[in-house]
Amino acid sequence: MTVAAVQPFASVGVIGAGAWGTAIALAARRAGRRATLWAREPDVIDAMRRDRENTRYLPGIPLDPDLQLTADLAEAAAADALMLVTPAQHLRAACQRLEPLTRPGTPVVLCAKGIELATGDLMSEAASAALPGRPIAVLSGPTFAAEVARGLPTAVTLAIADQELGARLVETLGSRSFRPYLSDDVTGAQIGGAVKNVLAIACGIIAGRRLGDNARAALITRGLAEISRLGLALGARPETLMGLSGLGDLTLTCTSLQSRNMSLGVALGEGRPLADILGERHSVAEGVHTAAAVGALAARHGVDMPICQAVDSILNQGADIDATIAALMARPFRIEGR
Amino acid sequence: MTVAAVQPFASVGVIGAGAWGTAIALAARRAGRRATLWAREPDVIDAMRRDRENTRYLPGIPLDPDLQLTADLAEAAAADALMLVTPAQHLRAACQRLEPLTRPGTPVVLCAKGIELATGDLMSEAASAALPGRPIAVLSGPTFAAEVARGLPTAVTLAIADQELGARLVETLGSRSFRPYLSDDVTGAQIGGAVKNVLAIACGIIAGRRLGDNARAALITRGLAEISRLGLALGARPETLMGLSGLGDLTLTCTSLQSRNMSLGVALGEGRPLADILGERHSVAEGVHTAAAVGALAARHGVDMPICQAVDSILNQGADIDATIAALMARPFRIEGR
Repeated sequence: MTVAAVQPFASVGVIGAGAWGTAIALAARRAGRRATLWAREPDVIDAMRRDRENTRYLPGIPLDPDLQLTADLAEAAAADALMLVTPAQHLRAACQRLEPLTRPGTPVVLCAKGIELATGDLMSEAASAALPGRPIAVLSGPTFAAEVARGLPTAVTLAIADQELGARLVETLGSRSFRPYLSDDVTGAQIGGAVKNVLAIACGIIAGRRLGDNARAALITRGLAEISRLGLALGARPETLMGLSGLGDLTLTCTSLQSRNMSLGVALGEGRPLADILGERHSVAEGVHTAAAVGALAARHGVDMPICQAVDSILNQGADIDATIAALMARPFRIEGR
Repeated sequence: MTVAAVQPFASVGVIGAGAWGTAIALAARRAGRRATLWAREPDVIDAMRRDRENTRYLPGIPLDPDLQLTADLAEAAAADALMLVTPAQHLRAACQRLEPLTRPGTPVVLCAKGIELATGDLMSEAASAALPGRPIAVLSGPTFAAEVARGLPTAVTLAIADQELGARLVETLGSRSFRPYLSDDVTGAQIGGAVKNVLAIACGIIAGRRLGDNARAALITRGLAEISRLGLALGARPETLMGLSGLGDLTLTCTSLQSRNMSLGVALGEGRPLADILGERHSVAEGVHTAAAVGALAARHGVDMPICQAVDSILNQGADIDATIAALMARPFRIEGR
């Protein structure tokens, strides 16, 4: 079913100027909108103004000449629609700062992925609590930022309860190369992005142990079944989990060494201790945090997620990799889909 | 749900000694069964007996010393359960030859993938017609033969109407490394394998045109939606299509250059003419044939399969690649899952 053609919002504010925030701002420009990209650090903004490039996060990709850059949060927050690229653990505080700066009714699109570890809340739950009266949307899907920034073809799920508003957001962001698929399943659109990093670590372990492509494909399939079981328990719809934010993002994350989580898993699978791997990295792979949160969420809702629980036990409870894999393989034969 | 522990069949006959048939025979040996592998050509059997290796199709992998090898079809057909690895276009004739050689009641497991082009029939339909009274099962999933032959972890769907017989087949073939998931959805288990080669060509074209990983992940996701729509129209169940024979096999085929279909697509995407590509190859990639059959099947059932139809038009109707991609990207924005 096609989305009704409606009036786009004229201006978009993007909160967060990492690779993904910068790419989203460029996508909004490509769709023909006024776009303002905010970074907290004035020197980051100065450098981008000078170089017309985000040299740290998106080197080699020129910034659209009409993209506005600011370190003034109020300036970005004055836009007709906001894109929040703040990481999960900082989202609630960012929303609290934005609350006095945004008009009620301004749609806020969550573009990062994850679970708030302190509460186990989905990002939409944290944002709704801190930004009452602002309709919350979720944008998620298989999106390497550099490809979006370059204008390579990309499709995402854009989920929001109010479908008229959703149609306007689709028109606001969508172009030939950036294709949002509209959904009303805000919960469902967040499950894949939250769990996929855990499964990417599992895929990395399989690769690092040289267990083959068959095993990885089986792991992706059974992993998606785990995402589905958790999602359904939280009220998501199956077609969302099988869509771009679920299967699509999982496939991308689990089949590319560009993924930090996958490469962490590879190193684990090759036998390197977790502490050594983390010591060498600038940023911790999100899946390390999420594994525990997903395990807790699964337990709270009585959902069986053996692969995620195995990753949690390897990362956080010192379980032996080979013994864990052997235990998974020694389970009794099963009926598919049950 | 786990499969009830039942008595396995003692002996397995495998019809077809290519890479996949040989791998299945080795899997049956690993599960502890007597296994007999049949090839039509006596010299192929002689060479395997002499070398204890299938040097042509599985070089470097030793054959189990107790694997029986024969060019006598009756000898292989006398087993308690048969694995048919005959390609789709030759299946009906092979079943007709087997009919006088097999006892009624002998389960016949179809291990190849495809659609009978002359009739548009699924392989189970062709086999049922030619082998009345023999229960027909389907084995399908993400399976590179060399990995199965080496005993690397592999999970597959094993579908058959009679679930008691299915449990016996699971016990017959299953081991630590080879994990059959039981299903009663014989139709559903064949859809993924039939359509995936067409989608793999599409993924190859995307790769050859350097359109990026986001585009490939979106294509896999929207491609699985096409598999699902066709499957549901034919009476399959969603969980089968999202399972090992659907999503699992699609993921494997679309993310590995080991796939002949994918590499054909890459060559097309790089701008080489189809005739040149086919001229250099020993065997035609199955997807070239299947694209037309899938297109016809979709039309007959009124199912929208824009990606498969695009591949068919590029392969068989001389459509321009860039114009075809541009037309797909210019479709109106859509609601996900509908």
